[in-house]
Amino acid sequence: MHFTSERRLDDGVLEREFALGEIPGILWTPEAASASAAVPLILLGHPGLGLHKMYPRLVARARHSAAEGFATATIELPGSGNRPGWPALDQARADLRRAMQAGEPVSDEIIDALVLPLVDRATPEWQAALDDLLALPEIGGPVGYSGGVISIGIRLAVVEPRIVAAGLFAGSFVPRAMFEEARQVTIPLHVLLQWDDEGNDRQAALDLFDAFGSKEKSLHANMGGHTGVPQYAGDAAAQFFARHLK
Amino acid sequence: MHFTSERRLDDGVLEREFALGEIPGILWTPEAASASAAVPLILLGHPGLGLHKMYPRLVARARHSAAEGFATATIELPGSGNRPGWPALDQARADLRRAMQAGEPVSDEIIDALVLPLVDRATPEWQAALDDLLALPEIGGPVGYSGGVISIGIRLAVVEPRIVAAGLFAGSFVPRAMFEEARQVTIPLHVLLQWDDEGNDRQAALDLFDAFGSKEKSLHANMGGHTGVPQYAGDAAAQFFARHLK
Repeated sequence: MHFTSERRLDDGVLEREFALGEIPGILWTPEAASASAAVPLILLGHPGLGLHKMYPRLVARARHSAAEGFATATIELPGSGNRPGWPALDQARADLRRAMQAGEPVSDEIIDALVLPLVDRATPEWQAALDDLLALPEIGGPVGYSGGVISIGIRLAVVEPRIVAAGLFAGSFVPRAMFEEARQVTIPLHVLLQWDDEGNDRQAALDLFDAFGSKEKSLHANMGGHTGVPQYAGDAAAQFFARHLK
Repeated sequence: MHFTSERRLDDGVLEREFALGEIPGILWTPEAASASAAVPLILLGHPGLGLHKMYPRLVARARHSAAEGFATATIELPGSGNRPGWPALDQARADLRRAMQAGEPVSDEIIDALVLPLVDRATPEWQAALDDLLALPEIGGPVGYSGGVISIGIRLAVVEPRIVAAGLFAGSFVPRAMFEEARQVTIPLHVLLQWDDEGNDRQAALDLFDAFGSKEKSLHANMGGHTGVPQYAGDAAAQFFARHLK
């Protein structure tokens, strides 16, 4: 991992772009973070629409987290943004779009093709990023994972012991195979569900919440549609991380 | 309404018992509440097991609310505590116990007999208490309703315009007729559900949450069983009232 750019935001947050091999990423650290005052880290998941497109929402989450004393970092997902194209993923996305536009139910085959290869490929990349991020003197632990493709969050929660708490967004398709993995999750979970999210299968989200093996898990369902997560829901998620990462 | 006793708790909260006709009640006000600094009020619902039995939990909620700057008040439910017996309610409770002990499904008839007369009788009592409480110079508005028999909370939310926000506990049986009333609720709602509450019908609780007509409604589902609501869930409910009553 090497840094490719660095700037200070107006609230003192240090924003550094980096490259992890071919993978672009961004790291945000609170002004006060230093080798003698290392801070916890939250990995910021996102839906894989490209970091550039997602930047406004990501930097807003990063600023909030920095105000709470957390560093945050994210990396580009495979097949997205400026990373090499991934024809199989593009095909799965096209199949999904076609099914949704035709008003057809989205088949298990489409969901599996869309999500499972992405989870398989992305998870070790996030782990490799974690290796390098935790080697920075100003980044300590513990580590949380927040948002993005929920199946990546599930896989990371199962395979990555350095992640001690996860805030997940029940807003994307979940392959049936991930329900089994969900049973293996034992870390504290904070799950957001937009109750009136037209593009999301609410019952599947409730079944997934039920499946999680964690003794401490909370579901926060709110109104506002897929992109209308209310401010107070973000505050509640921040409090969840404050409880578990401090 | 007249006060029958008065004492200061160690945190400065003023606790006053009162009688509203034959109905006993308790009012807690923060130390700083006065005619020139009137405070909002939260009505504390409870499950109707008698105020004496519920006192430890009620006073804990009252102290937390007082620390947030809220007065709280509660009254005994009809047929409970030291109030005159109510044979029909006792019969419905006995029928419920018998069905549950036999492992039978609890019929709509039992639920209706248990809850609907209680809602009909209790609601105007809470409204009468509200009349007298709001006449006290140290109690201003707005008014919230919190917890207890959820069907009483629903009815109050529909018929009592002085209640501007309600925190409800999805932990008791709900007659089918109350689902229709739930559609008429428009005030902001914060609904707690204990996901692993053995004695509660989870699907009915989710259906009820879906039925509420409120544009702002949040469901917070947590683990811990019926009586194991985690501390952070109480904090989240307090933040809900702080958003709406201040």
